[in-house]
Amino acid sequence: MRVLRVGEAGAERPAVLDGSGRLLDASGIVGDLDHRTLADGVLDRIAEAAAAGTLPVLADRTDGLRIGAPVARPGKIVCIGLNYRDHAEETGADLPAEPVVFMKDPWTVTGPYDGVLVPRGSVKTDYEVELAVVIGRTARYLDGDEDALACVAGYAVSHDVSERAFQLERGGQWDKGKSCETFNPLGPWLVTPDEIPDPQKLTLRLSVNGTEMQHGSTEDMAFPVAGIIRYLSHFMVLHPGDVINTGTPAGVALGRPEPRPYLRDGDVVECGIDGLGTMRHTFRQA
Amino acid sequence: MRVLRVGEAGAERPAVLDGSGRLLDASGIVGDLDHRTLADGVLDRIAEAAAAGTLPVLADRTDGLRIGAPVARPGKIVCIGLNYRDHAEETGADLPAEPVVFMKDPWTVTGPYDGVLVPRGSVKTDYEVELAVVIGRTARYLDGDEDALACVAGYAVSHDVSERAFQLERGGQWDKGKSCETFNPLGPWLVTPDEIPDPQKLTLRLSVNGTEMQHGSTEDMAFPVAGIIRYLSHFMVLHPGDVINTGTPAGVALGRPEPRPYLRDGDVVECGIDGLGTMRHTFRQA
Repeated sequence: MRVLRVGEAGAERPAVLDGSGRLLDASGIVGDLDHRTLADGVLDRIAEAAAAGTLPVLADRTDGLRIGAPVARPGKIVCIGLNYRDHAEETGADLPAEPVVFMKDPWTVTGPYDGVLVPRGSVKTDYEVELAVVIGRTARYLDGDEDALACVAGYAVSHDVSERAFQLERGGQWDKGKSCETFNPLGPWLVTPDEIPDPQKLTLRLSVNGTEMQHGSTEDMAFPVAGIIRYLSHFMVLHPGDVINTGTPAGVALGRPEPRPYLRDGDVVECGIDGLGTMRHTFRQA
Repeated sequence: MRVLRVGEAGAERPAVLDGSGRLLDASGIVGDLDHRTLADGVLDRIAEAAAAGTLPVLADRTDGLRIGAPVARPGKIVCIGLNYRDHAEETGADLPAEPVVFMKDPWTVTGPYDGVLVPRGSVKTDYEVELAVVIGRTARYLDGDEDALACVAGYAVSHDVSERAFQLERGGQWDKGKSCETFNPLGPWLVTPDEIPDPQKLTLRLSVNGTEMQHGSTEDMAFPVAGIIRYLSHFMVLHPGDVINTGTPAGVALGRPEPRPYLRDGDVVECGIDGLGTMRHTFRQA
C-alpha cells in the first residue's frame, strides 16, 4: 500500500494511492498520520478499508494536489553516516566499525515537491538521496533482525540535504550542517513493507538539473536496515513516527573533484528509489 | 510566573505555581503546553488570568502530585557543547571558537522527579546540570541579542544525562551517547523571563547522593544565551516548544580523576538553578 498526506502544509489529510493512480480518502479512518496514530495499527485498518472498497475517492489523480511528507512532524530523525561503501570511499573516510549516528531537526521535514532553501551564507549545500525507514512500533533493546523489521511502518525516499561547510568546517558535530530550514524532503508516499520484500535490493537515483549524480543500491549498505534498527534500539528508544535516514551512496558533491557541483538557487533535484517513487524539488536562496 | 504540567505522564495539565505554593489550574486557558500553544502568547494569557485571580485552585501544594516536564514533547532539543570555560578545561578540550552544536532525541524528556534509567551495557553514565531555554517565538536569521531574547518563552533546569562511552568511544558523533531513554529530565517548571532579569547571573548546582559535584555560574558561559539563540537561528529555525540545553559547568564524572564517579543503579541526583527550582531523580538499571 502507498499512503500519503495531501493538502496544504499543516492541513494535510491521509490518503491511499491505488493501483490505477486514484487517491482514496483515508481521513474517515484517522485524522492524520503521526506519532500517535502510527502506533495503533492504523495502516492495517486503512489497508483493510481500501481492500474492502469503502474509502471514498478523493481525486482521480495526484496532479495539481500538494503532497506533504507521509508523517506529520516526526518525533526524531536519526541518520546513519557513511553507510555505503562507495560513499565512505569518496569522502576519504574509513568504513565505520559500527554505525555512525547523528540527528536532524524534525522540523526540517517538507513535502516531496516543496521548494528547498539554500541557507544564507551557504556555498556548500549538497544532496544525498537516502532510503527512509518510518517506525510503526516501539523498538527498545531488540536482539533479532525479525523483531527489528517488525517495527517498520514503511519506507520512503528521503533527501538528507547537507551543508558541508556548516557540517565539517564550523567546529564540532555534524548536526550543524544537517538541520537547516527545509533540509529533509520526505516522500512522495509511505510504502508498506509487504510491497518491499527485501529493503537491501533497492536502487537509488538522484539527478541535478537532469544529470544523474547518484546511482546506487541498498545492497552496498555497510549496515542493513534490520541491523540499524536493532543497533539503534540499544542507544535510544525508537517510537512510532520516528524516521531513520539510512545513509547515501556515492556521487555527492563533496566526493567529486573541484569545482564541486554544490547546489544553488534554481537547481532542480530529482531523487527516487525503485518501488518507492520519485521526489522533485527546486532550490531557492533563503 | 512559574508554569508547570501536573498529572500522570501523557495526561498532564498546565498549572501555575503561585507565591504561596498553591497550584492554580490553567487548563481552562489551554489544554497543554506544546509547540502549538506556546506559539500563541498563551503564557501571557495564563499570567493575566493568574493576576486577575480567575484560575481555580488545583491543589494547596505540589506534594504528592506528579510533575511532568514543562513542555510536552519538544520539537527538538539542541545542545551546546563545551560552553563553560571550566568544563572545557576539565575535559581537556579547547574552548571552541564558535558554539559546538549537537542534538538529543526529544523523546528523552521526562519529568523533574521521574526515575532515570542507566542504559544496559553502560558503565559511564554521567550527569550534567544545564540551563534550559524554551523557545516561545520562531527564531530565524536573527541579527540582534534583543531579538534573540524576545524568542524565549522561559527557562528551566535541564539534566543532560550522557553516556560517555556511547558518546566518545563508539564511533562518530556525540548524539549516540545523549539520546538514551529518560536522558533528559526537565523542570521542575518553566520560569518566564520577567523573573530572570539576567540569564548570565545564575548559579547551577548538582549533587549525587548528597555530595555536591557541580557548582557553577552562567557567567562562565563562553557563548551567552542571547548569542546562542542568534547563532543557532542561522543554522536552523527555532520553533516554539523547542528546547536548548546551554551547556554544563565543571565537575562531571568524565572530568574527575579515576575512579570516576559514574552513575549507577540507586544513585540519587539533585540538580537546580537559583530562581528556577531543583529536580531530584533516582537512577535505575534499564
